[in-house]
Amino acid sequence: MRVVIPFDANDPKTRLAPVLDPDERRHFAEAMLQDVIAAVEGLGHRPLVASSSPVDVDVPTVVDDRPLTPLVDAAIAEGTPVAVVMADLPLATPASLARAFDAEAAIAIAPGRGGGTNVLVVREPAFRTDFHGASYRDHLERARSIGTSVHEVDSFRLATDVDDPSDFVDVLVHGDGRANAWLRDAGFRIAVEGGDPRATRNENDRH
Amino acid sequence: MRVVIPFDANDPKTRLAPVLDPDERRHFAEAMLQDVIAAVEGLGHRPLVASSSPVDVDVPTVVDDRPLTPLVDAAIAEGTPVAVVMADLPLATPASLARAFDAEAAIAIAPGRGGGTNVLVVREPAFRTDFHGASYRDHLERARSIGTSVHEVDSFRLATDVDDPSDFVDVLVHGDGRANAWLRDAGFRIAVEGGDPRATRNENDRH
Repeated sequence: MRVVIPFDANDPKTRLAPVLDPDERRHFAEAMLQDVIAAVEGLGHRPLVASSSPVDVDVPTVVDDRPLTPLVDAAIAEGTPVAVVMADLPLATPASLARAFDAEAAIAIAPGRGGGTNVLVVREPAFRTDFHGASYRDHLERARSIGTSVHEVDSFRLATDVDDPSDFVDVLVHGDGRANAWLRDAGFRIAVEGGDPRATRNENDRH
Repeated sequence: MRVVIPFDANDPKTRLAPVLDPDERRHFAEAMLQDVIAAVEGLGHRPLVASSSPVDVDVPTVVDDRPLTPLVDAAIAEGTPVAVVMADLPLATPASLARAFDAEAAIAIAPGRGGGTNVLVVREPAFRTDFHGASYRDHLERARSIGTSVHEVDSFRLATDVDDPSDFVDVLVHGDGRANAWLRDAGFRIAVEGGDPRATRNENDRH
């Protein structure tokens, strides 16, 4: 099965700007990408990274600056089955991805927090995507509208896309890859304030 | 298996105060509790609700205003196996709960977002809890320290505890129970702003 990882290399992860400067955001985004590549490779697949600008990784890349919807639709048009995995899933593991990749349904889909689509496996060539807005719901409706079967993958690991500083706690608690190591190296730790854990930064570790 | 659902009936869900008044927070918290009860009953279990003050539900209740840690430790001391399910998991389904309830390990644990523990199934009487801070990590360490097996349940539905208004999107997209109906009846809808879905309220529907 072909596996495509779209990656936005141009000013990535703007919602992290309150806590990470532009270079840090780029490095952290690349660390998450490396974690996703490793999870895909752990399942025995060699992914293609479709990046908005050149990126240095050890797997094939193509520079493609189209938005997500036409990019993924083109990947489907090139042939099915195809799996699309978002690049900001640092908790993805081979086991969690296998639940999507090995599904027998025509469409397998793992939601992201907040209504999005984080993993999409398409075996039906007629399926087309719409990543604008609450894409998970829209993708379910599109699958039903063309009469295809859908498997919903109920995974916390695949739902955890890291967009916001509040997401760092999950990377620190559950991650064991490069994104976790990057955050720790940058001085982020879990602190408990009022009973709730938060990620705080030791500014002495700012590079 | 005994199933306990702790419920904080006194000024619940304070982080929702910016968007819900105290009565609304109480009603919404009860709607989520009803969804959790229904999911547990869907698996053929009759839960016990351990509430900080009297609550009107169709299952047995006990009033117990202790914090979570001594309350759950007492439930374990009363006998194992016992399952503890948080009351604010409106996306819980029988299928997602079954992944925890049916696990063969001595401890099964489903993380919540942000480092917490949302479902805990204990078959080992010596296990004790600590719900303060990043409890998921602490519970894993405690299980290992007494040499028991642990099964980690990777479920988006069980990870989705609703504490913050930003969590409403997930209830509106993925829920089909009373919490979803309550939010819709209160005027909450998904609106797409800048490509990202958000829950917004039609103030004409405020009761």
